[in-house]
Formats: sequence, structure tokens, C-alpha cells
Amino acid sequence: MSRFGDATAVERTAEGRYEADLDAGFSFAEAVNGGYLMAVLARAAVDASPHEHPVATAATFLRVAKPGRAEVLVETRKSGRTAATARVGLVQDGVPVVEALITTSTLDAGDEPDWVGEPPVPAVPPIEHCTSFGGVGDDRTRGFADQVDMRFDPATMGWLDGQPGGRPEMRAWFGLADPHEPDAYALALAVDALPPIVLNMGARGWAPTVEMTWHMRAVPAPGPLAVHGSGRLVTGGWFDEEVEVWDSAGRLVAQSRQLARVGRKS
Amino acid sequence: MSRFGDATAVERTAEGRYEADLDAGFSFAEAVNGGYLMAVLARAAVDASPHEHPVATAATFLRVAKPGRAEVLVETRKSGRTAATARVGLVQDGVPVVEALITTSTLDAGDEPDWVGEPPVPAVPPIEHCTSFGGVGDDRTRGFADQVDMRFDPATMGWLDGQPGGRPEMRAWFGLADPHEPDAYALALAVDALPPIVLNMGARGWAPTVEMTWHMRAVPAPGPLAVHGSGRLVTGGWFDEEVEVWDSAGRLVAQSRQLARVGRKS
Repeated sequence: MSRFGDATAVERTAEGRYEADLDAGFSFAEAVNGGYLMAVLARAAVDASPHEHPVATAATFLRVAKPGRAEVLVETRKSGRTAATARVGLVQDGVPVVEALITTSTLDAGDEPDWVGEPPVPAVPPIEHCTSFGGVGDDRTRGFADQVDMRFDPATMGWLDGQPGGRPEMRAWFGLADPHEPDAYALALAVDALPPIVLNMGARGWAPTVEMTWHMRAVPAPGPLAVHGSGRLVTGGWFDEEVEVWDSAGRLVAQSRQLARVGRKS
Repeated sequence: MSRFGDATAVERTAEGRYEADLDAGFSFAEAVNGGYLMAVLARAAVDASPHEHPVATAATFLRVAKPGRAEVLVETRKSGRTAATARVGLVQDGVPVVEALITTSTLDAGDEPDWVGEPPVPAVPPIEHCTSFGGVGDDRTRGFADQVDMRFDPATMGWLDGQPGGRPEMRAWFGLADPHEPDAYALALAVDALPPIVLNMGARGWAPTVEMTWHMRAVPAPGPLAVHGSGRLVTGGWFDEEVEVWDSAGRLVAQSRQLARVGRKS
């Protein structure tokens, strides 16, 4: 088992009740990563379902999750032949932290797309032309960066040097530092792994996600994932961030959109 | 009050409990329209919130809603200064029909965007070059088409004549037949008002939405809304449909994505 596999494990304590131990490694400063939380929720939802894959996860982040013990409550609302849907909640100290609706289904790894759109342009550059997060951040903020193996398109990382690119974009190759081949749970992490795209607009600091929905579209092939993040509108302190994840076989495997708050301006 | 305003009204019967009367006019064949249902849910969520606008609505459609009496249950999970979040459920005959998570906030109609992406290309053609749904369908299926005033880009309507365009796209101008100026609830309807984009891929029949999330990004100006629908992947019987809604002042006012099942192939 990989560290990520261990860190997302849930233990069933009763019908629809699970315990999780949130790993401080997947946090960034004060907050446990939202993609990691969605992976934990998805593991409980799949355990409680006759189906194998979290095809639709809509999560609302109410409060900051802290490393340590958490309870995951799964309330099945429909269980059918094609799909099942549950309300899934993450609770710490009796307080709701994340609320989600998760629909599970069983995707066939052998499915060939009937139609697929063009891959995003520009592509993520070859991995040897990409840059890692090396040396950035202090002990307090490095947790998440140490758990993932991400290589960023330098064209979207000017904000690191005080030269934000001026467009809400971020692109990278994604994998886990302690190797864990792409699966549904790694996809949950991948869709929320990029630094906030508004860092390229001069925003600074943490950009808390309010709502994030992601769809698993195919079973990913082994190898690095290409993660493309972009946004459409920054207004009134809110921004959207869309992420597409393409696998090493060149297939679109996940799509997401989140609505988040812009951090403090520089 | 417009017919749409009446049709989406909810009556509070107790703390967190509302009654609605689903209007058969907003159904298509056997199913009440999903956007109309999201408007009804949003009205209850806003009534139960200190905030004015449904900025994030994530809805999962469990069963077909029937015209007539329905109950809407609102369970507040967090109520803060910037936003409030509730679980919102639509129940008919004691059975859950729609489950949603709705986050409300108060948008400022005077906000100017800090950044906005390019409008979708191609644009919806001038309204006089667009086509209505006139004469299509029988009494059973016309309900929804009679309640909206939609004018479609002819380039995306070849499927009506048995000549699907081959790309999952649909574009139209949107308004209500009984005039109702754009507001949050009209946006909920607009994001699910287009015919399924897979009709342009040779699919036929109803394409049931499984999960749909939409975000209200700005208070819309009066006048017709431009609605742009497109998809990225059709595979294993599933497809995604993204919709952007732009108002008459040229502003992006709503974004959505749905995951749906492909109807029977022709």
C-alpha cells in the first residue's frame, strides 16, 4: 500500500459510518487539501455502494479540516443498476466539515470513446522542460508539495518569481511521491492539486474552495497525468477553476470545476 | 407575477419545510425539466438563507419528477457572513426525487469583473437568423417548448431534419414565453434548457441528467440570454454538457456542467 492509499483508508464502524485518520502530509499550512478529502469521501461512498467508481462528486467545503480523526457518514439515497447516489458528510468534533453528493457507477476500462474533444492547448510541455516546487515554502506549508510529484509548465509559474502570467491558468504533470498508480482516488487528488490559478492574476495566499464538482470519465492508464487548470471569470472576490485530467494513454479521465474565493491581493 | 414566477413559488410550512406545486408546463414528455426543479429548490434555499443568490447548486436527479405537489426540505449546514450552505431535497410521495447542495451568497449587481475570458466562439447568430422549435413535437412533448422563448443557431439544429451536425454542441437565445426578466431562477432554467447536445451525434430520445452543478456568477441584465452548450466526451453511455450563459450586457452570468446518459442511438 502507498502512503496515499493508507492516508485515504476508511474503516467501517457501522452501516453508513466510517472512521478516517486525516494525514497531516496532505495539508497545506492550516488546511487539509480538498482533493484528498474528496478521495476519503469517495472511498467510503464506494464501500457503501454496489458500484466501483465515483463518477460524480459534488463537494461543499464548510470549514477547514484538521489532520487527525474524522468521521464519514454515508446516507444512500438511491441504489440502481447503473448508478447509486449517497449524501456523504465529513464530520470532526461533531461539526460538519465537508458535505458531498457522490454518485457511483462501474466504468469499463475497455470502453473506447464514441467522441472526444480536442486535447487542451497549449499542452503540458515534455516533463524534462517542466519545473518542480523544489525549495518553495517552509515546513508548515510543504506537506502537500512533498506528497505529490508534480512538474509544472514554467509558462504558468511566473507568480513564483513575482511575475504572474496575467491569465488564470496552471498546467502540470501529476503523480504521487510515494508511487500510487492513477485510480479514482488519485484523480480526486489531481483535480485539486494545482496552486490556485488566480496566483497568476496577482492574488496571493490561500484561495479557499467553496464548491467543487468533479466527474470521473474513464479508468486512467498507469503513468503520469496531465493536469490542465483554467478559469473564466474573476469577479466580486469569486473565481472559477476548471481542471481537465488526461492520462498517459491520451484519454480524458476527469473533469472538474470549483468556485473559490480569491486570496488577498498583492 | 409571471407564469414562471408562479410555477417556482414555494410555501414555507415549517422551519426548513416548503411545499411546491410542480407545473406540468415545464415538463417534457414524462419528466419535469431539471432546470425548473433547480429553480424551485433555489427559491426554498434562498428563503431559508440570509443571502440573496444561489451561487452554487449541485443537484443529483434520482427519479423522474411528476407534475403536482412536492415537498422541499432545507437543512442548513453552515450560515456565514459571506455564504450559507444547505442540503436541499425534493420529495414526492415520500420518495427522494432530487438531492442538492446549494450555497447562497449575495452578489453585487454593480461588480465589474477583475478578469473575464473570451466569449464563446462561434457566437449565437443574430436572433433574426435563428430558428424556433415551432411545430416540433406533439401535445405530450410540447409543454416545455411552449413556456420558453428560445431561438436556436440553425448550425446546431441539423438533427431536427435527420442531419446531426456531428459535434456535441447547441446554441440559442433564451427567454421565458410569459415574460420574466432574467434572475437567479431564470438562470437555473437556462442552464438546462437546451435539447441534449448528443442529438447532434445521432443519439435520439431523452438523455436523463444524472448530476448537474451550476454556478451563478453575476446578476443578469434584462434582455435575452445567450446560451452556449458543448461537450468534451461521449463514452460508455455517458456524456458531459457544459453551458455558459451570457447576458445582454455581454457578461458571463452562469456556468454549468452536467453528466448525463446518452439516449437510444438512431
